[in-house]
Order: sequence, then C-alpha cells, then structure tokens
Amino acid sequence: MAGVNKPDPARRSERSRQAILQAARELVSEVGYAKVSIEAIAARAGVGKQTIYRWWRSKGAVVFDSFLALSEGGDASDGDGGSVVLPDTGDIEADLKTVMRATVAEFADPGFEAPIRALNLEIVNDPELAAQYRDKLAAPVDEAKKARLRSAQRAGQIAADADLDLALELLYAPLYQRWLLRSGPLTPQYADALVDLALKALRP
Amino acid sequence: MAGVNKPDPARRSERSRQAILQAARELVSEVGYAKVSIEAIAARAGVGKQTIYRWWRSKGAVVFDSFLALSEGGDASDGDGGSVVLPDTGDIEADLKTVMRATVAEFADPGFEAPIRALNLEIVNDPELAAQYRDKLAAPVDEAKKARLRSAQRAGQIAADADLDLALELLYAPLYQRWLLRSGPLTPQYADALVDLALKALRP
Repeated sequence: MAGVNKPDPARRSERSRQAILQAARELVSEVGYAKVSIEAIAARAGVGKQTIYRWWRSKGAVVFDSFLALSEGGDASDGDGGSVVLPDTGDIEADLKTVMRATVAEFADPGFEAPIRALNLEIVNDPELAAQYRDKLAAPVDEAKKARLRSAQRAGQIAADADLDLALELLYAPLYQRWLLRSGPLTPQYADALVDLALKALRP
Repeated sequence: MAGVNKPDPARRSERSRQAILQAARELVSEVGYAKVSIEAIAARAGVGKQTIYRWWRSKGAVVFDSFLALSEGGDASDGDGGSVVLPDTGDIEADLKTVMRATVAEFADPGFEAPIRALNLEIVNDPELAAQYRDKLAAPVDEAKKARLRSAQRAGQIAADADLDLALELLYAPLYQRWLLRSGPLTPQYADALVDLALKALRP
C-alpha cells in the first residue's frame, strides 16, 4: 500500500515552499531586499537553509518567485511564468477594463502593494536587479498582454501597425506612476478612463 | 559712492547659495536623502550652518530647491517655481516634441539623472516627502504644462473636454517608467513616437 504515505511528503513539501515564499515576501516588505538573507527566510519559514537551496539557487531567485507567485497567484518555481493568459472575450475594451480594474484593485490593497513597492525600490536602485526583473517577471507578463493586443489587431480593434511595446507603456505606465508617486486616486473609474484614452490612440 | 561696495556682498551671497545647492544635490546622489545632514551640506559648500538656515528652514527645503534649480535652471529660493513656461509656437505637436526631446536628453545625462533617481527613491519610500514633492516641485511644472495644453485646446488641437491630468500622465508616465526601470532606450525617436501616440488620443 505505497500510496498511503506518498501524499504526505508532497503536501509537506508544498507547505514548505509556500511558507518560504511568504517569508521572503514579508521580509522584503519589512527590511528591504538588501537586508534579507537566506538564513532569515529559512528561520521565518521554519525550514533549513538546504530546503531553500533545493529549489532556488540564490536569494534573488526565491524573492522573484515569491513576487511572481503573488502577482499571478500560481506556481512559478520554474521561473517562466508560463501560465499568464489575459481574458479574451473578443472585445478588447471590455477585456482591458477587466484587467486594469483588477490591477488597480491590487495596487490599492496594502498587503499586495507593500512588497511590490519594496521590490520596486530595489529595482530602481540596482540596474542588475532591474534586468533580472525584466527578464523573469515583467517579460512573460508583457508577452501575455501583447498576445491579447495582437488578437485585437487581428479583430481590427487596434491598428495593425501599432507599436505594442509603446501601447503597453501607454496603458500601464500612468497607473504605475500614479501608484508609485501616490499622485492620484486609483479607482475603477480611473482604470476605465485610462483604457478609453489609450484605445483612442491605438484604434485603426 | 555707496554703489561701489554693494555688488560684492550680493555676488558672494549668490555664490554661497549656488555652492549650497550643488553640495545638496551631490550629497543626495552620493549617500541618499536620508543620510544627508545640514552639517554635511554646509561643510561641502564651505559655509556655516547659519548661512543655510538664513535661506532654508530644513534639509528638505534646501534639497528640494537644489533639484528645482537643476530641473528649471533658475532661481527657486521662493519655492514657487513660478518661472516655468513651456514653448508656445502655436503648434502643439512641434512644441511637445521639443519639450519631450529635451526631457529625454536630461534623463539620458548621468549628471542629471543620478540625483533625480536618488530623489525618486526617497519619494517612493516616503509618503510625506512624496506630498512635499508634489506640492513644491511637480505641481508648478504640471501647471505650466497644463497651461500649454489649454492653449492647444483653445486652438482646437486638443479635445475641449480632455482630462488634462490624465493627458499629462499619458505623455510623461511612459518616459518616466522607461527611465526609472531602465526598460528601454530613451531617444529623440522615442520622444516623437510618444507625442504622436498621445496626441492621437487627445485630438478633438
């Protein structure tokens, strides 16, 4: 009856992984990325250092996965963020408003925004970390967003010759700046107004 | 002949002011806002602490003026940034491209961007400093930009019902984000493409 005991190690293993990811996020929020150590993450998660090194090669790797798991709500230990898919109802305006309202809600949530703010501080300060962030966290999400914009191009809802990198900046940078500098309210109405204006620029 | 000696103290005074502003900028770049002291600014500028307190009431006040002087190239000891005016040739597209190309060039200049990056780190980290930044540095500049957009509205080049705060975010946030996250090249071509796309959203 080998099956009787097998689920337990797997469940324990997953609990450890989740505890490590949560500890990493909490510590980055509390003391900043620079002061977080693998030792501190292990201590807070209640695991040994070797358990962390079994899954991640560095502090940077575990911290990035902890944020990736948070922002996508999924398992990202392989670091490819492969499961990011945006809604596609066939209506780009409706889908972008759904996504942007969700993004606004995330940034208005202190439990989500505090660790992301801590991560952004480190990224702004450290070009090497910024490059890692782009490759491991931002690029897969941007690709998913661009896939949705390409689908809208095929549907004739966005200009065929639109620069999709610039289109993403037009949609997301105002929200990012408003959140980062706390320069205005983040509301569903703001998300809608931003989508309306950006789409006016992007329509055929 | 009272006039003979009068210019000297005024010139010396202005030299001291400029030395203090430069020392403040350099120190914020080098060690970060939190670690800068009035004492250190005075020492580097070669003046006494009382000379600084003659013109500014706090470290925050002198640091802000130092950045305001840098970004506007003018005298800002009164803290109102009142001299900010954008070009108005009657052609909003040409004027915005002039301004955005100049902004891109500033952010591509290490001597300019390093202290501004240091200031941004402090602002992102500190809501109170962010509020001071908005009121003392950003608001006067934003008002000047909005005055130019209003002139374009009167000329029928921008929609009369455009939300000008959102319009400024659409124009500047992509550039700000690209610079802050180092996520793409800052070139004159980028400035032009951004103005073209934003104006497409803003036209009547």
